[in-house]
Amino acid sequence: MHLTKEDIKELEKRKRLNIINSITGIKPANLIGTVSEDNVSNLAIFSSIVHLGSNPALLGFIVRPTGEVPRNTYENILANGCYTINHVNESFIKNAHYTSAKFDKDISEFDRCGLTDEYLYDFKAPFVKESSVKIGMKYCESIPIERNGTILVIGEVEHLILPDETVNKKGYIDLEKAQVAGISGLNSYYSLEKITSFPYVRLEEVPEFKNN
Amino acid sequence: MHLTKEDIKELEKRKRLNIINSITGIKPANLIGTVSEDNVSNLAIFSSIVHLGSNPALLGFIVRPTGEVPRNTYENILANGCYTINHVNESFIKNAHYTSAKFDKDISEFDRCGLTDEYLYDFKAPFVKESSVKIGMKYCESIPIERNGTILVIGEVEHLILPDETVNKKGYIDLEKAQVAGISGLNSYYSLEKITSFPYVRLEEVPEFKNN
Repeated sequence: MHLTKEDIKELEKRKRLNIINSITGIKPANLIGTVSEDNVSNLAIFSSIVHLGSNPALLGFIVRPTGEVPRNTYENILANGCYTINHVNESFIKNAHYTSAKFDKDISEFDRCGLTDEYLYDFKAPFVKESSVKIGMKYCESIPIERNGTILVIGEVEHLILPDETVNKKGYIDLEKAQVAGISGLNSYYSLEKITSFPYVRLEEVPEFKNN
Repeated sequence: MHLTKEDIKELEKRKRLNIINSITGIKPANLIGTVSEDNVSNLAIFSSIVHLGSNPALLGFIVRPTGEVPRNTYENILANGCYTINHVNESFIKNAHYTSAKFDKDISEFDRCGLTDEYLYDFKAPFVKESSVKIGMKYCESIPIERNGTILVIGEVEHLILPDETVNKKGYIDLEKAQVAGISGLNSYYSLEKITSFPYVRLEEVPEFKNN
């Protein structure tokens, strides 16, 4: 199948959404936890969390234009300055997926979708108790992407909580052991099976490949 | 395990790189193909490709500060205006991983790492023949992230090439069928197994969950 830019433009809207949301490959499935000024816990699923740097430890994610679902999340982050990123485990993908429904601002998606908010280490935003990997984030800045009205939201890691047995000596997290899920498009979930790890590649160690 | 911001800062550099590169969860494994002004094909692995929007179809990725490996990629994109994004299939993760070595600018990673460049539809950048999903991208703009010297590079999809049998009627790509790999951290590779798809969630369809 070959689609040009023009073919993509002419696709039925829902089909275009599905295919273009799928073309980057597997995406991380994360829940962002926040709390409103009225003290209502909020939880929303995001698949756009991206690593920006390790020192300082910075992560970004993309907020869609006003009017779409996860906007409560962004408002809470701006008001409060703190948020959490929690991995979606295979065991609760259905609960996590339901957070994408458009709940009113005074409804907690934790309660409504059967997940548990927990406040740890005096951090000002709720973690997801059921998640194996939880990150407490401090909001840094918003970078507008004017081309399509989206925003890159940048935060710094303040707390990192994860099960000892999923981290090896080198610092790698085993996502299969942590039973973390991946997402494709808007609503397909995948389980992860570790194939292999390679060492850092030094130029002199690259073998001669026979080109096929 | 609980690490604070201060604990992370004090980790040994390599361990910090590994752990912070792992904490977002699974990442897409993609190869970016470019060609230099001297007509040398270039290929580099990236795990930061992110969906920015579907209409127009925009994708972004993160370029690290000057001096690090994939900088040839960025120079070629600026000079040429076109690049390709190609999924890493399970069958050639080793070849794909070796593109992260610091080859000289006059060496083609395609040749050196045993992958095949192909030029399709008069597009000005090389696709990876072995990839199941290939995207031709037109460069749009660079947004500097001054906080840590990285750059968000934004492009628009011009061509999308993928096997018919991996796309369903709704436009979803089955990544398991396409035998696409995921990446964690800097060097761990995962295979993907589809668990389930959920329909778009309407508020009135969210069941009552019993909170645990």
